[in-house]
Amino acid sequence: MTNSDLANALLQACQKRGIMLATAESCTGGMIIAALTDIAGSSAVVDRGFITYSNEAKMDMLGVSAATLDAHGAVSRETAIEMATGALTRSRAGLTLAVTGIAGPGGGSAEKPVGLVWFGVALDGRPIVAEHQLFADKGRDFIRRETVRQALELGLQALG
Amino acid sequence: MTNSDLANALLQACQKRGIMLATAESCTGGMIIAALTDIAGSSAVVDRGFITYSNEAKMDMLGVSAATLDAHGAVSRETAIEMATGALTRSRAGLTLAVTGIAGPGGGSAEKPVGLVWFGVALDGRPIVAEHQLFADKGRDFIRRETVRQALELGLQALG
Repeated sequence: MTNSDLANALLQACQKRGIMLATAESCTGGMIIAALTDIAGSSAVVDRGFITYSNEAKMDMLGVSAATLDAHGAVSRETAIEMATGALTRSRAGLTLAVTGIAGPGGGSAEKPVGLVWFGVALDGRPIVAEHQLFADKGRDFIRRETVRQALELGLQALG
Repeated sequence: MTNSDLANALLQACQKRGIMLATAESCTGGMIIAALTDIAGSSAVVDRGFITYSNEAKMDMLGVSAATLDAHGAVSRETAIEMATGALTRSRAGLTLAVTGIAGPGGGSAEKPVGLVWFGVALDGRPIVAEHQLFADKGRDFIRRETVRQALELGLQALG
């Protein structure tokens, strides 16, 4: 399925369940919600997006704690979970998709290479899902596009 | 210039001036900030994006007033101005780009047809710029892409 097909399927799954959707995006910088809102009629399901590119934005907009960012970094399981949770409590959405990763070409390290992305998915009333992927470093565009795909797939999985 | 060239030029103009950038997007649903963050190194300039697809999001995230939405509607000069101003006061950005419009295919009326988009540009210390465009109804993709272009051009114009 293309990212557009996945976005469409996710919107339909949310609508069937009667819930709205929000995103909390760092490395994708709005691409996930742009893909969702590309679909006509998406306003029935898409509530809002928190595009928290800077650490300050992650704290201000989503309530990610300074302690978490200090101890684990912006690209971490802990930050992804706090982003997804923050988006859930700060919106009308029943499902939130959070991503934080290193799209490159700069910003990588031995411990956290370019292509590492952490995902957080919060579905109201369920435990948060957090997972990571290490995408091949085939360039910034590739990593961002694959991150969008994976986030949409995780959203669909969460809705069963 | 392509939207990518415009995004690059705008990032460079902000960097030269030493200011950060934020977006407040409704009908583009994250496309403006996605275009900006597509560029490597954009994290030096891009602070955050408020993707306020619903009216509730416009009020919660940007402080757009219920009175404004009631009196003028979400697609109006007044809402665009409040979105741009709200993004400026709620971020570290010195320049904010706001857009609210009707991308279609639904949602149009005689008074506010599909293709009508209001733009607000707030540059710290300057009067807010607000203007509208009535784009040809050549489909949702066309209207959203042209809206991104126009927003980036208005940002460049504001920086002179």
